[in-house]
Amino acid sequence: MSNPSKGRFITFEGGEGVGKSTNIHFCATWLRDKGIGVITTREPGGTPVAETIREKLLKAHHEEPVDPLAELLLMFAARAQHLNTLILPALEAGTWVLCDRFTDSTIAYQGYGRQLPMEHIHNLKALVQHNLEPDRTFLLDAPLEVGMGRARARADSAGEQIDRFETEKLAFFERVQHGFHALAAAEERFATIDASRPLTDVQQDLALELEKLL
Amino acid sequence: MSNPSKGRFITFEGGEGVGKSTNIHFCATWLRDKGIGVITTREPGGTPVAETIREKLLKAHHEEPVDPLAELLLMFAARAQHLNTLILPALEAGTWVLCDRFTDSTIAYQGYGRQLPMEHIHNLKALVQHNLEPDRTFLLDAPLEVGMGRARARADSAGEQIDRFETEKLAFFERVQHGFHALAAAEERFATIDASRPLTDVQQDLALELEKLL
Repeated sequence: MSNPSKGRFITFEGGEGVGKSTNIHFCATWLRDKGIGVITTREPGGTPVAETIREKLLKAHHEEPVDPLAELLLMFAARAQHLNTLILPALEAGTWVLCDRFTDSTIAYQGYGRQLPMEHIHNLKALVQHNLEPDRTFLLDAPLEVGMGRARARADSAGEQIDRFETEKLAFFERVQHGFHALAAAEERFATIDASRPLTDVQQDLALELEKLL
Repeated sequence: MSNPSKGRFITFEGGEGVGKSTNIHFCATWLRDKGIGVITTREPGGTPVAETIREKLLKAHHEEPVDPLAELLLMFAARAQHLNTLILPALEAGTWVLCDRFTDSTIAYQGYGRQLPMEHIHNLKALVQHNLEPDRTFLLDAPLEVGMGRARARADSAGEQIDRFETEKLAFFERVQHGFHALAAAEERFATIDASRPLTDVQQDLALELEKLL
Protein backbone atom coordinates (compact mmCIF):
# COMPACT_ATOMS: atom_id res chain seq x y z
CA MET A 1 0.00 0.00 0.00
CA SER A 2 2.95 2.34 -0.24
CA ASN A 3 2.03 3.09 -3.84
CA PRO A 4 1.02 6.76 -3.62
CA SER A 5 -1.49 6.51 -6.46
CA LYS A 6 -3.48 3.95 -4.49
CA GLY A 7 -6.20 4.83 -2.05
CA ARG A 8 -5.78 4.26 1.67
CA PHE A 9 -7.72 1.60 3.52
CA ILE A 10 -8.88 2.77 6.95
CA THR A 11 -10.90 0.65 9.34
CA PHE A 12 -12.88 1.64 12.42
CA GLU A 13 -13.13 -0.82 15.27
CA GLY A 14 -14.59 -0.98 18.76
CA GLY A 15 -17.62 -2.18 20.69
CA GLU A 16 -21.24 -1.16 20.20
CA GLY A 17 -22.19 2.46 20.79
CA VAL A 18 -18.70 3.97 20.66
CA GLY A 19 -19.65 6.26 17.75
CA LYS A 20 -18.17 4.45 14.77
CA SER A 21 -20.81 5.64 12.26
CA THR A 22 -20.69 9.27 13.38
CA ASN A 23 -16.92 9.34 13.22
CA ILE A 24 -16.68 7.57 9.87
CA HIS A 25 -19.02 10.23 8.50
CA PHE A 26 -16.80 12.92 10.03
CA CYS A 27 -13.63 11.41 8.52
CA ALA A 28 -15.22 11.01 5.06
CA THR A 29 -16.29 14.65 5.06
CA TRP A 30 -12.89 15.80 6.32
CA LEU A 31 -11.11 13.87 3.53
CA ARG A 32 -13.53 14.99 0.82
CA ASP A 33 -12.90 18.59 1.88
CA LYS A 34 -9.24 17.91 1.05
CA GLY A 35 -10.28 16.76 -2.45
CA ILE A 36 -9.85 13.04 -1.77
CA GLY A 37 -12.22 10.45 -3.26
CA VAL A 38 -13.72 8.41 -0.43
CA ILE A 39 -16.20 5.59 -0.06
CA THR A 40 -17.61 4.44 3.25
CA THR A 41 -18.68 0.85 3.75
CA ARG A 42 -19.26 -1.71 6.49
CA GLU A 43 -18.72 -5.33 7.48
CA PRO A 44 -20.24 -7.79 7.37
CA GLY A 45 -21.75 -6.49 4.13
CA GLY A 46 -20.84 -3.69 1.78
CA THR A 47 -21.94 -5.26 -1.54
CA PRO A 48 -25.28 -6.83 -2.57
CA VAL A 49 -23.99 -10.42 -2.15
CA ALA A 50 -22.21 -9.65 1.12
CA GLU A 51 -25.29 -7.80 2.45
CA THR A 52 -27.36 -10.90 1.57
CA ILE A 53 -24.98 -12.99 3.69
CA ARG A 54 -25.44 -10.47 6.50
CA GLU A 55 -29.24 -10.19 6.29
CA LYS A 56 -30.25 -13.75 5.36
CA LEU A 57 -27.64 -15.65 7.36
CA LEU A 58 -25.76 -13.72 10.02
CA LYS A 59 -28.55 -11.48 11.34
CA ALA A 60 -31.59 -13.61 10.48
CA HIS A 61 -33.51 -15.76 12.89
CA HIS A 62 -33.25 -19.42 11.91
CA GLU A 63 -35.08 -22.59 12.91
CA GLU A 64 -31.73 -23.99 14.00
CA PRO A 65 -28.69 -22.38 15.63
CA VAL A 66 -25.97 -21.36 13.19
CA ASP A 67 -22.93 -23.55 13.79
CA PRO A 68 -20.02 -21.36 15.03
CA LEU A 69 -17.63 -22.60 12.33
CA ALA A 70 -20.29 -22.06 9.65
CA GLU A 71 -20.75 -18.51 10.98
CA LEU A 72 -17.01 -17.86 10.78
CA LEU A 73 -16.92 -19.14 7.18
CA LEU A 74 -19.91 -16.95 6.28
CA MET A 75 -18.13 -13.94 7.76
CA PHE A 76 -15.08 -14.58 5.59
CA ALA A 77 -17.23 -15.36 2.53
CA ALA A 78 -18.81 -11.91 2.92
CA ARG A 79 -15.33 -10.44 3.39
CA ALA A 80 -13.94 -12.10 0.23
CA GLN A 81 -16.87 -10.71 -1.75
CA HIS A 82 -16.44 -7.25 -0.22
CA LEU A 83 -12.68 -7.13 -0.75
CA ASN A 84 -12.60 -8.47 -4.29
CA THR A 85 -15.69 -6.70 -5.57
CA LEU A 86 -15.54 -3.33 -3.83
CA ILE A 87 -12.54 -2.57 -1.62
CA LEU A 88 -9.59 -3.65 -3.79
CA PRO A 89 -10.94 -2.11 -7.03
CA ALA A 90 -11.63 1.17 -5.17
CA LEU A 91 -8.12 1.28 -3.69
CA GLU A 92 -6.62 0.50 -7.11
CA ALA A 93 -8.58 3.42 -8.54
CA GLY A 94 -7.09 5.77 -5.93
CA THR A 95 -10.24 5.99 -3.80
CA TRP A 96 -9.88 5.87 -0.05
CA VAL A 97 -12.01 3.26 1.71
CA LEU A 98 -13.36 3.84 5.23
CA CYS A 99 -14.77 0.62 6.62
CA ASP A 100 -16.95 0.11 9.70
CA ARG A 101 -15.40 -3.06 11.20
CA PHE A 102 -13.07 -5.51 9.48
CA THR A 103 -11.11 -8.64 10.44
CA ASP A 104 -10.09 -7.19 13.82
CA SER A 105 -13.77 -7.44 14.81
CA THR A 106 -13.80 -11.11 13.79
CA ILE A 107 -10.72 -11.71 15.93
CA ALA A 108 -12.22 -9.79 18.86
CA TYR A 109 -15.78 -11.22 18.72
CA GLN A 110 -15.34 -14.74 17.33
CA GLY A 111 -11.80 -15.30 18.59
CA TYR A 112 -11.61 -13.59 21.99
CA GLY A 113 -15.36 -13.39 22.62
CA ARG A 114 -16.66 -16.77 21.48
CA GLN A 115 -13.28 -18.40 21.86
CA LEU A 116 -13.15 -20.08 18.47
CA PRO A 117 -9.64 -21.37 17.75
CA MET A 118 -7.54 -18.33 16.80
CA GLU A 119 -5.60 -20.49 14.35
CA HIS A 120 -8.76 -21.00 12.26
CA ILE A 121 -9.37 -17.27 12.10
CA HIS A 122 -5.77 -16.54 11.10
CA ASN A 123 -5.86 -19.23 8.39
CA LEU A 124 -9.05 -17.80 6.92
CA LYS A 125 -7.64 -14.28 7.15
CA ALA A 126 -4.57 -15.37 5.18
CA LEU A 127 -6.76 -17.12 2.60
CA VAL A 128 -8.97 -14.08 2.03
CA GLN A 129 -6.59 -11.16 2.58
CA HIS A 130 -3.22 -12.57 1.51
CA ASN A 131 -0.98 -9.83 2.90
CA LEU A 132 -3.45 -6.98 2.83
CA GLU A 133 -3.85 -5.07 6.07
CA PRO A 134 -5.60 -1.73 6.65
CA ASP A 135 -3.24 1.23 6.34
CA ARG A 136 -4.67 2.56 9.57
CA THR A 137 -7.14 1.24 12.12
CA PHE A 138 -8.91 3.54 14.56
CA LEU A 139 -9.94 1.76 17.71
CA LEU A 140 -12.71 3.83 19.26
CA ASP A 141 -12.30 2.83 22.83
CA ALA A 142 -14.75 3.34 25.67
CA PRO A 143 -15.47 1.50 28.91
CA LEU A 144 -18.06 -1.25 28.77
CA GLU A 145 -21.61 -0.06 29.28
CA VAL A 146 -22.06 1.38 32.70
CA GLY A 147 -25.20 -0.67 33.11
CA MET A 148 -23.38 -3.94 32.76
CA GLY A 149 -20.61 -2.87 35.06
CA ARG A 150 -23.17 -1.85 37.65
CA ALA A 151 -25.00 -5.17 37.47
CA ARG A 152 -21.82 -7.01 38.24
CA ALA A 153 -20.66 -4.67 40.95
CA ARG A 154 -24.03 -4.88 42.67
CA ALA A 155 -24.06 -8.67 42.59
CA ASP A 156 -20.43 -8.87 43.74
CA SER A 157 -20.94 -6.60 46.72
CA ALA A 158 -24.18 -8.28 47.75
CA GLY A 159 -22.69 -11.74 47.24
CA GLU A 160 -25.67 -12.35 44.96
CA GLN A 161 -25.82 -14.55 41.92
CA ILE A 162 -26.81 -12.59 38.86
CA ASP A 163 -28.61 -14.12 35.97
CA ARG A 164 -26.31 -16.53 34.13
CA PHE A 165 -27.01 -15.01 30.75
CA GLU A 166 -26.14 -11.57 32.10
CA THR A 167 -22.87 -12.83 33.57
CA GLU A 168 -21.95 -14.56 30.34
CA LYS A 169 -22.83 -11.49 28.33
CA LEU A 170 -20.65 -9.31 30.51
CA ALA A 171 -17.78 -11.80 30.43
CA PHE A 172 -18.17 -12.01 26.65
CA PHE A 173 -17.93 -8.25 26.14
CA GLU A 174 -14.99 -8.06 28.50
CA ARG A 175 -13.17 -10.66 26.40
CA VAL A 176 -14.04 -8.73 23.22
CA GLN A 177 -12.68 -5.51 24.68
CA HIS A 178 -9.56 -7.28 25.90
CA GLY A 179 -9.17 -8.61 22.33
CA PHE A 180 -9.30 -5.14 20.83
CA HIS A 181 -6.74 -3.88 23.34
CA ALA A 182 -4.43 -6.82 22.64
CA LEU A 183 -4.65 -6.19 18.88
CA ALA A 184 -4.02 -2.47 19.31
CA ALA A 185 -0.97 -3.19 21.48
CA ALA A 186 0.44 -5.67 18.96
CA GLU A 187 -0.04 -3.86 15.67
CA GLU A 188 1.41 -0.50 14.74
CA ARG A 189 -1.38 0.31 12.32
CA PHE A 190 -3.73 0.90 15.28
CA ALA A 191 -4.49 4.31 16.73
CA THR A 192 -6.52 4.03 19.92
CA ILE A 193 -8.89 6.96 20.39
CA ASP A 194 -10.54 7.52 23.75
CA ALA A 195 -14.16 7.65 22.64
CA SER A 196 -15.56 8.37 26.08
CA ARG A 197 -14.62 12.06 25.69
CA PRO A 198 -16.78 14.77 24.06
CA LEU A 199 -17.19 14.26 20.32
CA THR A 200 -15.23 17.41 19.43
CA ASP A 201 -12.16 16.05 21.24
CA VAL A 202 -12.49 12.67 19.53
CA GLN A 203 -12.77 14.33 16.13
CA GLN A 204 -9.82 16.61 16.78
CA ASP A 205 -7.71 13.48 17.35
CA LEU A 206 -9.10 11.82 14.22
CA ALA A 207 -8.30 14.91 12.11
CA LEU A 208 -4.72 14.91 13.43
CA GLU A 209 -4.39 11.23 12.53
CA LEU A 210 -5.84 11.74 9.05
CA GLU A 211 -3.45 14.64 8.47
CA LYS A 212 -0.54 12.22 8.95
CA LEU A 213 -1.88 9.97 6.19
CA LEU A 214 -2.00 12.68 3.52
CA MET B 1 -15.85 -44.76 11.66
CA SER B 2 -14.89 -48.33 12.56
CA ASN B 3 -17.13 -48.13 15.62
CA PRO B 4 -19.85 -50.66 14.76
CA SER B 5 -22.55 -48.81 16.69
CA LYS B 6 -22.10 -45.77 14.46
CA GLY B 7 -23.97 -45.22 11.24
CA ARG B 8 -22.19 -45.33 7.90
CA PHE B 9 -21.68 -42.21 5.81
CA ILE B 10 -22.18 -42.87 2.09
CA THR B 11 -21.87 -40.20 -0.58
CA PHE B 12 -23.03 -40.24 -4.20
CA GLU B 13 -21.00 -38.32 -6.76
CA GLY B 14 -21.00 -37.72 -10.48
CA GLY B 15 -22.12 -35.22 -13.12
CA GLU B 16 -25.64 -34.02 -13.85
CA GLY B 17 -28.19 -36.55 -15.01
CA VAL B 18 -26.34 -39.71 -13.98
CA GLY B 19 -29.21 -40.83 -11.74
CA LYS B 20 -27.97 -39.86 -8.28
CA SER B 21 -31.44 -39.16 -6.81
CA THR B 22 -33.00 -42.35 -8.17
CA ASN B 23 -30.16 -44.47 -6.90
CA ILE B 24 -30.01 -42.82 -3.49
CA HIS B 25 -33.69 -43.61 -3.14
CA PHE B 26 -32.99 -47.22 -4.16
CA CYS B 27 -30.14 -47.56 -1.64
CA ALA B 28 -32.21 -46.04 1.18
CA THR B 29 -35.06 -48.47 0.52
CA TRP B 30 -32.66 -51.42 0.26
CA LEU B 31 -31.05 -50.53 3.61
CA ARG B 32 -34.38 -49.89 5.36
CA ASP B 33 -35.55 -53.32 4.21
CA LYS B 34 -32.58 -54.70 6.16
CA GLY B 35 -33.81 -52.83 9.27
CA ILE B 36 -31.22 -50.06 9.11
CA GLY B 37 -32.12 -46.48 10.04
CA VAL B 38 -31.30 -44.20 7.11
CA ILE B 39 -31.55 -40.53 6.28
CA THR B 40 -31.02 -39.10 2.81
CA THR B 41 -29.72 -35.57 2.35
CA ARG B 42 -27.93 -33.38 -0.17
CA GLU B 43 -25.22 -30.76 -0.60
CA PRO B 44 -25.08 -27.88 -0.74
CA GLY B 45 -27.95 -27.83 1.73
CA GLY B 46 -29.50 -30.43 4.01
CA THR B 47 -30.50 -28.20 6.94
CA PRO B 48 -32.54 -24.97 7.07
CA VAL B 49 -29.45 -22.74 7.40
CA ALA B 50 -27.48 -24.65 4.76
CA GLU B 51 -30.48 -24.61 2.39
CA THR B 52 -30.67 -20.83 2.90
CA ILE B 53 -27.02 -20.59 1.81
CA ARG B 54 -27.91 -22.69 -1.24
CA GLU B 55 -31.07 -20.82 -2.22
CA LYS B 56 -30.19 -17.23 -1.30
CA LEU B 57 -26.51 -17.27 -2.24
CA LEU B 58 -25.30 -20.16 -4.36
CA LYS B 59 -28.31 -20.62 -6.65
CA ALA B 60 -29.76 -17.10 -6.58
CA HIS B 61 -29.33 -14.50 -9.25
CA HIS B 62 -27.40 -11.50 -7.92
CA GLU B 63 -26.79 -7.96 -9.11
CA GLU B 64 -23.08 -8.75 -9.00
CA PRO B 65 -21.12 -11.91 -9.78
CA VAL B 66 -20.30 -14.03 -6.73
CA ASP B 67 -16.54 -13.94 -6.17
CA PRO B 68 -15.12 -17.49 -6.66
CA LEU B 69 -13.40 -17.52 -3.25
CA ALA B 70 -16.58 -16.24 -1.57
CA GLU B 71 -18.48 -19.06 -3.29
CA LEU B 72 -16.00 -21.63 -2.04
CA LEU B 73 -16.31 -20.28 1.52
CA LEU B 74 -20.11 -20.37 1.26
CA MET B 75 -19.94 -23.97 0.11
CA PHE B 76 -17.87 -24.93 3.16
CA ALA B 77 -20.04 -22.81 5.48
CA ALA B 78 -23.04 -24.84 4.31
CA ARG B 79 -21.00 -28.02 4.79
CA ALA B 80 -19.97 -27.11 8.35
CA GLN B 81 -23.61 -26.45 9.20
CA HIS B 82 -24.73 -29.71 7.58
CA LEU B 83 -22.02 -31.84 9.20
CA ASN B 84 -22.30 -30.44 12.71
CA THR B 85 -26.09 -30.09 12.81
CA LEU B 86 -27.28 -33.13 10.88
CA ILE B 87 -24.69 -35.62 9.62
CA LEU B 88 -22.48 -36.15 12.67
CA PRO B 89 -25.36 -36.39 15.18
CA ALA B 90 -27.13 -38.90 12.90
CA LEU B 91 -24.00 -41.07 12.55
CA GLU B 92 -23.46 -40.92 16.32
CA ALA B 93 -27.02 -42.15 16.82
CA GLY B 94 -26.34 -45.15 14.56
CA THR B 95 -28.27 -43.82 11.57
CA TRP B 96 -26.78 -44.25 8.13
CA VAL B 97 -26.47 -41.07 6.07
CA LEU B 98 -26.79 -41.14 2.27
CA CYS B 99 -25.69 -37.81 0.83
CA ASP B 100 -26.16 -36.47 -2.71
CA ARG B 101 -22.77 -34.83 -3.36
CA PHE B 102 -20.13 -33.91 -0.78
CA THR B 103 -16.60 -32.49 -0.80
CA ASP B 104 -15.57 -34.56 -3.84
CA SER B 105 -17.98 -32.42 -5.88
CA THR B 106 -16.30 -29.26 -4.56
CA ILE B 107 -12.93 -30.67 -5.60
CA ALA B 108 -14.27 -31.71 -9.03
CA TYR B 109 -16.29 -28.55 -9.83
CA GLN B 110 -14.42 -25.75 -8.05
CA GLY B 111 -10.97 -27.34 -8.13
CA TYR B 112 -10.74 -29.19 -11.46
CA GLY B 113 -13.59 -27.35 -13.21
CA ARG B 114 -13.08 -23.72 -12.18
CA GLN B 115 -9.42 -24.27 -11.37
CA LEU B 116 -9.43 -22.63 -7.96
CA PRO B 117 -6.21 -23.44 -6.10
CA MET B 118 -6.54 -27.01 -4.85
CA GLU B 119 -4.58 -26.06 -1.72
CA HIS B 120 -7.39 -23.70 -0.64
CA ILE B 121 -9.97 -26.44 -1.03
CA HIS B 122 -7.88 -28.93 0.93
CA ASN B 123 -7.29 -26.42 3.72
CA LEU B 124 -11.01 -25.71 4.02
CA LYS B 125 -11.78 -29.41 3.89
CA ALA B 126 -9.38 -30.02 6.79
CA LEU B 127 -10.91 -27.12 8.74
CA VAL B 128 -14.48 -28.37 8.34
CA GLN B 129 -14.08 -32.16 8.25
CA HIS B 130 -11.01 -32.74 10.42
CA ASN B 131 -10.33 -36.37 9.52
CA LEU B 132 -13.85 -37.37 8.57
CA GLU B 133 -14.24 -39.05 5.19
CA PRO B 134 -17.25 -40.89 3.81
CA ASP B 135 -17.13 -44.64 4.52
CA ARG B 136 -18.01 -45.26 0.90
CA THR B 137 -18.43 -43.03 -2.13
CA PHE B 138 -20.33 -44.20 -5.20
CA LEU B 139 -19.19 -42.45 -8.34
CA LEU B 140 -22.02 -42.78 -10.85
CA ASP B 141 -20.07 -42.51 -14.03
CA ALA B 142 -21.42 -41.85 -17.51
CA PRO B 143 -19.98 -40.21 -20.63
CA LEU B 144 -20.53 -36.48 -21.01
CA GLU B 145 -23.82 -35.58 -22.61
CA VAL B 146 -23.99 -36.82 -26.16
CA GLY B 147 -25.25 -33.41 -27.23
CA MET B 148 -22.12 -31.66 -26.08
CA GLY B 149 -19.86 -34.25 -27.64
CA ARG B 150 -21.71 -33.91 -30.91
CA ALA B 151 -21.41 -30.12 -30.95
CA ARG B 152 -17.67 -30.40 -30.65
CA ALA B 153 -17.26 -33.22 -33.18
CA ARG B 154 -19.36 -31.31 -35.70
CA ALA B 155 -17.31 -28.14 -35.32
CA ASP B 156 -14.02 -30.07 -35.38
CA SER B 157 -14.83 -31.90 -38.60
CA ALA B 158 -16.19 -28.78 -40.34
CA GLY B 159 -13.23 -26.72 -39.13
CA GLU B 160 -15.82 -24.36 -37.67
CA GLN B 161 -15.53 -22.27 -34.58
CA ILE B 162 -18.22 -23.11 -32.12
CA ASP B 163 -19.61 -20.59 -29.72
CA ARG B 164 -17.02 -19.73 -27.10
CA PHE B 165 -19.38 -20.33 -24.21
CA GLU B 166 -20.21 -23.78 -25.60
CA THR B 167 -16.51 -24.65 -25.94
CA GLU B 168 -15.80 -23.43 -22.43
CA LYS B 169 -18.77 -25.32 -21.06
CA LEU B 170 -17.60 -28.54 -22.67
CA ALA B 171 -14.02 -28.02 -21.51
CA PHE B 172 -15.34 -27.30 -18.02
CA PHE B 173 -17.37 -30.51 -17.82
CA GLU B 174 -14.46 -32.50 -19.19
CA ARG B 175 -12.25 -31.15 -16.41
CA VAL B 176 -14.95 -31.98 -13.83
CA GLN B 177 -15.22 -35.55 -15.11
CA HIS B 178 -11.46 -35.90 -15.14
CA GLY B 179 -11.49 -34.69 -11.53
CA PHE B 180 -13.96 -37.36 -10.45
CA HIS B 181 -11.90 -40.04 -12.18
CA ALA B 182 -8.70 -38.81 -10.54
CA LEU B 183 -10.36 -38.86 -7.11
CA ALA B 184 -11.78 -42.34 -7.69
CA ALA B 185 -8.36 -43.62 -8.74
CA ALA B 186 -6.66 -42.10 -5.70
CA GLU B 187 -9.02 -43.04 -2.89
CA GLU B 188 -10.03 -46.54 -1.86
CA ARG B 189 -13.38 -45.44 -0.48
CA PHE B 190 -14.63 -44.93 -4.07
CA ALA B 191 -16.65 -47.48 -6.01
CA THR B 192 -17.11 -46.41 -9.61
CA ILE B 193 -20.42 -47.59 -11.05
CA ASP B 194 -20.99 -47.45 -14.80
CA ALA B 195 -24.24 -45.46 -14.85
CA SER B 196 -24.68 -45.61 -18.62
CA ARG B 197 -26.10 -49.16 -18.31
CA PRO B 198 -29.75 -50.05 -17.64
CA LEU B 199 -30.92 -49.05 -14.17
CA THR B 200 -31.39 -52.68 -13.03
CA ASP B 201 -27.71 -53.39 -13.70
CA VAL B 202 -26.64 -50.25 -11.85
CA GLN B 203 -28.79 -51.17 -8.87
CA GLN B 204 -27.54 -54.75 -8.81
CA ASP B 205 -24.01 -53.36 -8.42
CA LEU B 206 -25.13 -50.94 -5.73
CA ALA B 207 -26.84 -53.74 -3.77
CA LEU B 208 -23.65 -55.84 -3.92
CA GLU B 209 -21.64 -52.87 -2.65
CA LEU B 210 -24.11 -52.18 0.17
CA GLU B 211 -24.02 -55.85 1.18
CA LYS B 212 -20.27 -55.49 1.84
CA LEU B 213 -20.92 -52.62 4.26
CA LEU B 214 -23.32 -54.54 6.50
